[in-house]
Parts: sequence; structure tokens; C-alpha cells
Amino acid sequence: MAMIFPEAEYRARLAAIQSGMARAGRDALLLTTEPEIRYISGFLTRFWESSTRPWFLIVPVRGDPVAVIPGIGQPLMAQGWIADIRCWPSPDYADDGVSLLASALAEFVPTGGAIGVPSGGETHLRMPLESWAALRAALPLRSFGDDAGILRRLRMVKSADEIACIEHACAIAGRAFARVPEIARAGVPLSHVFRRFQMLCLEEGADWVPYLAGAAAPGGYADVISPATDAPLRQGDVLMLDTGLVRDGYFCDFDRNFSIGPASPALREAHAALIAATQAGFAAARPGARVCDLYHAMAAVTGGGVESGRLGHGLGMQLTEPPSLIPADDTVLAPGMVLTLEPLISMGQGRILVHEENIVITEQCARWLSPVAGPEIMEIAA
Amino acid sequence: MAMIFPEAEYRARLAAIQSGMARAGRDALLLTTEPEIRYISGFLTRFWESSTRPWFLIVPVRGDPVAVIPGIGQPLMAQGWIADIRCWPSPDYADDGVSLLASALAEFVPTGGAIGVPSGGETHLRMPLESWAALRAALPLRSFGDDAGILRRLRMVKSADEIACIEHACAIAGRAFARVPEIARAGVPLSHVFRRFQMLCLEEGADWVPYLAGAAAPGGYADVISPATDAPLRQGDVLMLDTGLVRDGYFCDFDRNFSIGPASPALREAHAALIAATQAGFAAARPGARVCDLYHAMAAVTGGGVESGRLGHGLGMQLTEPPSLIPADDTVLAPGMVLTLEPLISMGQGRILVHEENIVITEQCARWLSPVAGPEIMEIAA
Repeated sequence: MAMIFPEAEYRARLAAIQSGMARAGRDALLLTTEPEIRYISGFLTRFWESSTRPWFLIVPVRGDPVAVIPGIGQPLMAQGWIADIRCWPSPDYADDGVSLLASALAEFVPTGGAIGVPSGGETHLRMPLESWAALRAALPLRSFGDDAGILRRLRMVKSADEIACIEHACAIAGRAFARVPEIARAGVPLSHVFRRFQMLCLEEGADWVPYLAGAAAPGGYADVISPATDAPLRQGDVLMLDTGLVRDGYFCDFDRNFSIGPASPALREAHAALIAATQAGFAAARPGARVCDLYHAMAAVTGGGVESGRLGHGLGMQLTEPPSLIPADDTVLAPGMVLTLEPLISMGQGRILVHEENIVITEQCARWLSPVAGPEIMEIAA
Repeated sequence: MAMIFPEAEYRARLAAIQSGMARAGRDALLLTTEPEIRYISGFLTRFWESSTRPWFLIVPVRGDPVAVIPGIGQPLMAQGWIADIRCWPSPDYADDGVSLLASALAEFVPTGGAIGVPSGGETHLRMPLESWAALRAALPLRSFGDDAGILRRLRMVKSADEIACIEHACAIAGRAFARVPEIARAGVPLSHVFRRFQMLCLEEGADWVPYLAGAAAPGGYADVISPATDAPLRQGDVLMLDTGLVRDGYFCDFDRNFSIGPASPALREAHAALIAATQAGFAAARPGARVCDLYHAMAAVTGGGVESGRLGHGLGMQLTEPPSLIPADDTVLAPGMVLTLEPLISMGQGRILVHEENIVITEQCARWLSPVAGPEIMEIAA
């Protein structure tokens, strides 16, 4: 299924982008990454895992987008709504799409015109630097600059269809988390728990499981990004699993903490504080509030530990998207924004505890997308 | 487990890189992507799924590497062998690591010195273009250029430890493929087969399953990169599953074809031809032969259809790595190179059939890493 949504969804996105381009004076946008290209074309494939070939989408300020892609992608792209698909046999060591891309850009961008490329935070250019230099050399009479933040701004606000996809992913992960007692107990290696948890995600309906991190350690863990070791779970461990599974091309991203055996009073207290912080973030989340308000609402409860760098973020086609819940982010919340609330509490001796839920901003307030956890940490019989 | 191999493995890689740098006149390399950074540091995490934060590794021409990374990665990086770890609290909208990186580069690269960045085929720069411009502006007296292809050349030849990891991944996928008859039969939706196949990969020992593509269609399929639809398998379909699963940070990448119900004579003949082509590629694979020789050996059997753009590629920390099995690639094969052999045959009406195996070049010839398939296509009772 190349295109999850009806063509009207993509046409609405295109119209909003082109309106922004007209205001910002961009004749075309050049897009090179998976989420940027899928946002407009609907092109959904796991083949991006291969970094061999570059892929390009041109969005002219008027008219329909043009895909300039390796021939291997032609049949799948042709299932979608993009009609103008130009292919080359990639990989081509002499010219891996650069001439084809340059001639297409020259069609849509007049001499002296401006080509916008996403250039700000959380973006990158997915093509070799050598090809990038060759492209600019091939078009000396056009200017290359940023995209005026158009994609960042628009992608932060999700459509009803997108929100439904994220909510579906959250529900799948919620069912998998509820089954963790089936797979985790003292003596089971953490790596085994990781494998079995991913199997539960798939069994409950995930299309794939691009992200799973976590830890198990007594009274808290050192970080939230480590892969599993083969060390067995032990009584007194806090087990944390943080997953980003995908359904229909959209992520959830939330975690759960479990106590192996009875939780200590300190752990119970810390977990309850994290849930209280999450609820404080949720209460502050409404249209017109700023992203930094959510940060401060949560930090006021937890005491402000931010070893992870932020207390939440956007979510959608990617595991993490703008904005960031940090003091410096004054983005005004708007209906349709999907966010994670991810407070952190310090447990001493370099240990932390992190909780995470997913929400969407509605017309009046916020709504939980993940099945919000209660204050009591789940205990798994050792 | 941050570092899969002993420190000596990484020190040997570093020495080879620095030797190449000295020859090419590079004072430092700047690395920004997951495989580049892991190749030297051993830093293994699925957190790269988040594109929010940039990560940097500096390789000076003499002395040990320096990690310049977001604070969230400090505990995990500190488990490895890199001693000089410099962190900033990311995301920072005003300066997301650029100043810290610039000052570290200035320490190791003298005025007038040269900084190399991987710039050729299959590479990209994983940082925002705005940050890239700011970095270069902050170091006006140093030059930025390519890495002289050093990483590409060295990474193509795998160590014994790396080959063992890839072989382990191949064995896991081989066991999962052998169990496909448990999950596939007429009437089962392809999306269900995809989910269950990923579960089999995990159950057989995959750490995660970053890649699965495939198709099911009568007498051949249109492409090899599509995600699953919910269409049920039907008698007469060819089911193809192509997986890249990861174990200890290394990929396998091979596929299997199955006939749902008895295979037609045309399908049996095509499958046998694909296996013959794979065997021809294998026979041509020995030190001193060129990559293009494998291409020609296989194309001579299949008649030369190359809708996929190539007939195989390198494999390792990434699903696909250099080289490419195309006529233009005259890379001389050397012991330790790990390749996929991926011949393709046209079935008419836009349909293709693709087979794929994984091999390693040895001192005299080649050795199968995947459990090579026989000429008869596997039949699954409809």
C-alpha cells in the first residue's frame, strides 16, 4: 500500500506548502528524506533502510510535485498519486540522478529563482555531498537556500487521518505493554525480554518495530537509549521498555516501568511523581499555550532533572519530530499537534526514571493517545 | 552492550584509517552517521531512529578519536573504549553542538589543515545544512573536503569478528525462512505473513528486524521494495520475503521465494535459472576477480534483466553497503569482503523474480554465509 490516505489529504498538504512557498519566495522545494517525501507523495516503503540510492521530490510553487527517483522505486511510486515520475538506473557511479534532478529543477525554477531545501533543526540532506556540489554547479543561475521552515511548521500539525494512525499505533503498544508480565520475570535475560516484547508488538498489530530501548537495574537506570544486554532480570530491578512501533507508517512512542518483585517506597514515590508530572503536562496542554509551558509544568513536579535533554517531543511519521519540550521552545500549541510527555526524575547515583505518554492537542485541551498509566508502578512477581 | 568487539578491533581500524589519512593529507575526519561512528567507537544503539540530535566523531590523524555527542548518549558511549567524550545538552536551538565541535576540531587540525568528511556514493552528512554552514564559518582557516574514500575502502573488507556476526544473522534468517510454511498458506493476508515472519526472526534470535520487503502475486511480482498489503495469498501466487535482520549490530540480507500451491513449469524454470545464476556468481567470486565479473557471470545466465539497478551489493553494519554489482564497478575482490548475490529474471508483463544469497570472499574463493537454496522453488500447500 503505497499511499495510506486519500489523494485529497496529500493535495491539502501540497496547497498549504505552496501557499507558504509563495509567501516565502521559493520557486521549488527539493526534498530528499523519507518523511519529507512521504508527507507529500504517500510513498511508504522500508527500503529507505538502504542508504545506497538518493531519492528526490520536487515541489514547484505551482502545479504538481515531480518524483526523481531510482528505477527500483518506479512501480511502487506509480501506485500513488504522483503522476510525474522520472527515473534513472541507480546506482550510477558517474551520475547518480544529479543530471536528471538538475534538468527537472531547471524546468520548474526560472533563472534567478530560489530552491528551498529543509535546512534547520532535525533535518539533513540525504544525498552525497559530492552530488550536492555537482547539483549546485549544474544550476549556477538558481539559488539554493532553506525552506523557510515550511515543512517543520506544517508537519507539526497532524490531520485527523494522521492522528487516527498514531492512536492505532498507541493502542497496539498499550496491549503489548499489558502483556509484559507474560515475558518478564527474575532470571530472564533482558535481551530475551526485548525480543519477546517486539514479538508481542507484532502479534498485537504492529507492522514493524523500528525502535525499542530500555534497561533493567536496581532502583533506576543510567540511560534510556541502550540496547539490551544478556544480563538476567533480578528482584529489585526496575525494568523499563520504551517502544516506537509503526502501524500504517505512523509511530507511537511511549514507555512503561515495571518493578521486578515488590517496589521499594522510593521507587513507588518516584513513579507516582512521574505520573503526576505527566498529568501536569497534560493539564497545561491546550491551544494557545506554549511548548515551554509543558516543560515547566512537568519540571515543577519532578524538580527539573533533564539528563535526557528535553521532557518530550513531537511524534508522527518519525519517532521524534519537532517541537522539543525545552525552555527555549515557544511554539504555540495548536489543535492537531501530537506530542510525547516524557518527564524524568533523578534517583541518585547517576540513576534516572523516565515515564512517557502520547497526547494530541484538541480544540479545547488535550486528549491521551496512549493508555495513560496510573501512579502505581506495575509489579511483576519475581 | 555498547561495544561488541574487543578494543583491539577498533584500534586496528583506527590505525588503518589514520594510515590512509596520512597518505591523503587529512588532519582529521569528521563522521556524522551511525555506521561511520560505530565503525570506530563500537557505539551501538537504536536511538539513531530519532533524527532530532546530531552526533559527531572526530578522528585525528594521530591519537585517539573524540566523541562530540548529545548528553543523552554519554552513559552509553562511556561504556566503550572512547575516552574523550564531550557532550552538550541537545537539543539546543541556538547552537546544537556546532561550537563544541568547532573548538574540538580546532584542537586537532592546525590552521591551514584539512578536514575530511565522507562525501562519495552511499554517504550523506547527518546534520542540518544550517549547522554545516555555521561549522565551516566557525573554522575559516581550515579546509573541508572529502575523506579520500578511506572509510568506503576499509569498511568493504570485514574482519573475522564481523564475518562471524553476519553469518550468525544469516543463520537466524535461515531458520526463520525454513518455518515460513508454518505461517503462509492460501487465504492468509500478506500483512499477516509479514508480521508473523518478523516474529519468527525474533524468536530465532534476531535482535531486531529493520528490513522486510516482499510480495505475493501470480507468476512474479512487480517490485522488491513494497510493504505488505492485506490481500490474502492465493493459489498460484509466488510469495517472496526479503529480510534484513540484525544480530549484534550486523545484518543479513537475503530472500526466499515460495509457490503457493504447485509451481508452474515457467516458475520452476525461472527459479532454477536464478539459482544457477547465483551459483555462477559464486563461482566467479574469488580474490583478484572484479565486482563487475560477478555481475556479468550472473547476467549471462539470467539474460540480463536489471530492473533493480544491480545484481547484489556489500553488506555489514548496513543492509546495503558498497560495492554495487554493476558493470561499472571494477573493485578488485579481496578476502573478507561480504557480498549479496541478487540475480533477477524477467517473467514478462512487468513481473520479475529475484533471488538473493550472502557470501564472503575467502583466501582462495568464496564461502556461503546464507544457507544457499536449491534449484527447486519451495512449494507451500494451498
